[in-house]
Amino acid sequence: MNTGFRATVSRYIPILDWGRRYDRSAFSDDALAALIVTIMLVPQSLAYALLAGLPAQMGIYASIVPIILYAIFGTSRALAVGPVAVVSLMTATAVGSIAQQGSAEYITAAITLAFLSGLFLLALGFLRLGFLANFLSHPVIAGFITASGILIATGQIKHLLGIQASGHTLPELVLHLFENMGDTNFATLAIGVSATAALFWIRNGLKPLLVSLGFDARLANVISKSGPVMVVAATTLIVWAFALDDQGVRTVGAVPQGLPPLTAPSFSADLWAGLFVSAILISVIGFVESVSVAQTLAAKKRQRIDPDQELIGLGMANIGGSFSGGYPVTGGFARSVVNFDARAATPAAGAFTALGLLMASLFLTPLLYYLPQATLAATIIVAVLSLIDLSILPRTWAYARADFAAVSLTILATLGLGVEIGVTAGVVLSILIHLYKTSRPHMAVVGQVPGTEHYRNVLRHEVITDPAILTVRVDESLYFANARYLEDRVYDMVASRPKVEHVILMCPAVNEIDMSALESLEAINERLGDIGVGFHLSEIKGPVMDRLRRSDFLQHLNGDVFLSQHQAVETLTEDKGFGHTA
Amino acid sequence: MNTGFRATVSRYIPILDWGRRYDRSAFSDDALAALIVTIMLVPQSLAYALLAGLPAQMGIYASIVPIILYAIFGTSRALAVGPVAVVSLMTATAVGSIAQQGSAEYITAAITLAFLSGLFLLALGFLRLGFLANFLSHPVIAGFITASGILIATGQIKHLLGIQASGHTLPELVLHLFENMGDTNFATLAIGVSATAALFWIRNGLKPLLVSLGFDARLANVISKSGPVMVVAATTLIVWAFALDDQGVRTVGAVPQGLPPLTAPSFSADLWAGLFVSAILISVIGFVESVSVAQTLAAKKRQRIDPDQELIGLGMANIGGSFSGGYPVTGGFARSVVNFDARAATPAAGAFTALGLLMASLFLTPLLYYLPQATLAATIIVAVLSLIDLSILPRTWAYARADFAAVSLTILATLGLGVEIGVTAGVVLSILIHLYKTSRPHMAVVGQVPGTEHYRNVLRHEVITDPAILTVRVDESLYFANARYLEDRVYDMVASRPKVEHVILMCPAVNEIDMSALESLEAINERLGDIGVGFHLSEIKGPVMDRLRRSDFLQHLNGDVFLSQHQAVETLTEDKGFGHTA
Repeated sequence: MNTGFRATVSRYIPILDWGRRYDRSAFSDDALAALIVTIMLVPQSLAYALLAGLPAQMGIYASIVPIILYAIFGTSRALAVGPVAVVSLMTATAVGSIAQQGSAEYITAAITLAFLSGLFLLALGFLRLGFLANFLSHPVIAGFITASGILIATGQIKHLLGIQASGHTLPELVLHLFENMGDTNFATLAIGVSATAALFWIRNGLKPLLVSLGFDARLANVISKSGPVMVVAATTLIVWAFALDDQGVRTVGAVPQGLPPLTAPSFSADLWAGLFVSAILISVIGFVESVSVAQTLAAKKRQRIDPDQELIGLGMANIGGSFSGGYPVTGGFARSVVNFDARAATPAAGAFTALGLLMASLFLTPLLYYLPQATLAATIIVAVLSLIDLSILPRTWAYARADFAAVSLTILATLGLGVEIGVTAGVVLSILIHLYKTSRPHMAVVGQVPGTEHYRNVLRHEVITDPAILTVRVDESLYFANARYLEDRVYDMVASRPKVEHVILMCPAVNEIDMSALESLEAINERLGDIGVGFHLSEIKGPVMDRLRRSDFLQHLNGDVFLSQHQAVETLTEDKGFGHTA
Repeated sequence: MNTGFRATVSRYIPILDWGRRYDRSAFSDDALAALIVTIMLVPQSLAYALLAGLPAQMGIYASIVPIILYAIFGTSRALAVGPVAVVSLMTATAVGSIAQQGSAEYITAAITLAFLSGLFLLALGFLRLGFLANFLSHPVIAGFITASGILIATGQIKHLLGIQASGHTLPELVLHLFENMGDTNFATLAIGVSATAALFWIRNGLKPLLVSLGFDARLANVISKSGPVMVVAATTLIVWAFALDDQGVRTVGAVPQGLPPLTAPSFSADLWAGLFVSAILISVIGFVESVSVAQTLAAKKRQRIDPDQELIGLGMANIGGSFSGGYPVTGGFARSVVNFDARAATPAAGAFTALGLLMASLFLTPLLYYLPQATLAATIIVAVLSLIDLSILPRTWAYARADFAAVSLTILATLGLGVEIGVTAGVVLSILIHLYKTSRPHMAVVGQVPGTEHYRNVLRHEVITDPAILTVRVDESLYFANARYLEDRVYDMVASRPKVEHVILMCPAVNEIDMSALESLEAINERLGDIGVGFHLSEIKGPVMDRLRRSDFLQHLNGDVFLSQHQAVETLTEDKGFGHTA
């Protein structure tokens, strides 16, 4: 095996790199981290599977093989892959539009969705297209996550009340809740509300209490992370002891015991067509969520992650999940932070977590029979409330109305029309706003800042100008969307300044001149030439100048091209035979 | 009526402005122009209606009312509105997918398409959204027009051969032509080929011949413009005289004689839904074609047109057409140039043309019975061949591969998949390419050009730099698509230069910093602060600075903001207590 080949293989399979240096200290760190994460993941995995409309055990299956594959192919040391709230909700939306919840087709569709999403992530990774995720702007992501959190929490209220309420949008959910509120099962409500309260208290109050009681901080941490398991155990025991399932408290029921099953995605063309757009959206959202978690955690340790390799890691995880009874997964924030806080040293921590979940799947599932769904709903509600952060609205309002518009639309569309339309609307609107802004660029008439060679906007600074020289700084790349606008503005400015003999287009902000803009520059050059006005360019950047040299524009230019604006003004002023004045 | 109200009314109804100053000299110019245009329009209007798959007389109807309405609401002095080749082809494509050619539904759909397209144009006009047309880049338009010309010319060959061949794409058309070539009617072929040859000769050779024979240039012009009418008359007479219609030469046949009929668009929701996208595409293409013709002609006379008002003019023209037996119209290049060359002084020339066409519709239609369709096909072929210009391919190849990619895709998609997919693909690809480019901006490390206060790329110029100061000029607005890329690049540059104490982000090309980019700048600031590197900004533009002041970023900035790059370097060098060296 030669070195070049080995380097290539190592790039795509990072385990070959860190695996070689693995030692006992890393092992004990990883194993402890895995224990903590496993304890946290069991109830959460069950809950998210129910959120996706799937049998509870699929949440555990979805964690096992994907975690191992991510450990082999991923680059983040701390990322924990598995079912997450937003992707589970998106799965429910996507699969729910194709099959009836509870049917075999529904399960097959979810497995196929994981497979398609994995294929798409792999394709993006091999084509090194990870940057595409950047088109989801921060405000759009923030708005989408917040709106999804609201949808998820609202969707769980029915489980706390023990009633029916379905829907993929907020109005539908709220309407159904009100319609069916009369059916509330009070035993369920009591369990649900107590579980929610207990989980909130465990999340915020247990660890400080334990520490104040003299527990070691790390132990206090383990105990408080296992709090949800205690709530699960307590409510399960209560249901069993008082036979509350006979009083209408819905429980998880029989869960098959054993290894994750060998499953396979469907290869039906119809199903693929029906899931295609959803698979793309889930992949992109999952990738963005995962990468931002991974980057945040990596930055804390001065490590770097490779987004394109992350695509491959997540892609393999999803494909692996689709063959082992799973549904779409990604790197989750909560579980990764736990992993990180528990000092996971390498991706092997993930593999040990998988082992722990395998044990749970083999031995613990019979104990889940009496686990009330209300407890799982409480787990989800407590988890997603931390996702909801409406502060993005005032922050964007204060900073930039365009961002505010994008984030508001994303939130409204997600709540009112569902997750898929919501995120798509956000992305499309932010791109449209950006294009609109670049289509009407800021243009400033500039003059010399006294005592310097620096030229700035005449409206904002005290500057020196010459009535015979009009310098226009155009603050945008020149391309098809603004080419005609540029023409119109230059003509207008020249028309209103009859003394002008030279027009200098100052181009420090022009990063591109495409064919359409070149034709507009030619038109401006010709028009100004006709009326005896010189047309000059200054501060054209290297790459743009290279481009212009490939056309014959510079030969036709009736003026000159100057390296700097100052040189342009000096030369044109000298040519006239007198100094320029204020 | 107060002045403000009158100004508003005049803005939307320009005739109130020029109509008041109308005099005898303008009248005689307009009337002569109208005569010439009418003579040219009769055969062309019939031909384009057949191209759209409609009865020949609809081409004339489509010119009458629309011309008058455009004269009232439009702003161009020379624009002649009516059926044009590309829009006729697009009409055939759109309506052909909904109804069978020759059926009453087909005609209703074409009329409804004109109505919808008119509504859409009006809406764009009132919302002042004319700039949207700028997103059709020059190369995309050029490619689309060329490909449409090829499609149209190929589609007419069947009429020259007297065979059947249908299809909306080049492969379909060519395949059908080869399949049915054996059915060629030789009488039709003889007429078709002679008419084509005659029209080519008239277009290029007749006027010079007449002038060399001593005719007055203007008269020679009128005669040569009426050449097509002579070809129409000659071939009609031949078919009649030799009873060639009995030998299989297809003719126009019975055309109703009379005023344009009163028609109405359908208000069927299904039909509207089926035509909606087509109406948008036809409106935009028609508008772009019309505006570029109008602007070209206006520029020659130092006049200006108002694109938003043009939308209203074209919108009224189409709505008017839909109530008078017409189909979608726009400003055509050939007829407008004729109008212009014939010295039309005001839009009234158009109204006189409408009068001429009305006369034709009232009195000439019986004469059209024996007019062979092959002659009309020849008229179309000669007209559209001037649209075909493949030189855009080598020009864009030489200048910019991105433009080349957009134009090639437009041509291939238009020829291979049809006009609607073709133009959409071109627009989408050019926007995607633009976004891709801005997502990975050019970034240059810069230094001082000796003896100046000007700073340029170290790789392209001999410049002075200081190892403790890294100045990075980022050549793009900072927004969501490139925010993460900026972070990565800055970290990489700092990591590879251990001596760096200050990073200056030089921002003359940064025209916007959106919320996502602000968060990235905050992250960079924090990360550099952690490793003891100062983070400074220079040459931030006014509007961007205003924006930054609305956030708390400047308070957290661990360095300073400098008006000019030179000032930044001077200050930071002085702080260190020694001069900066080469």
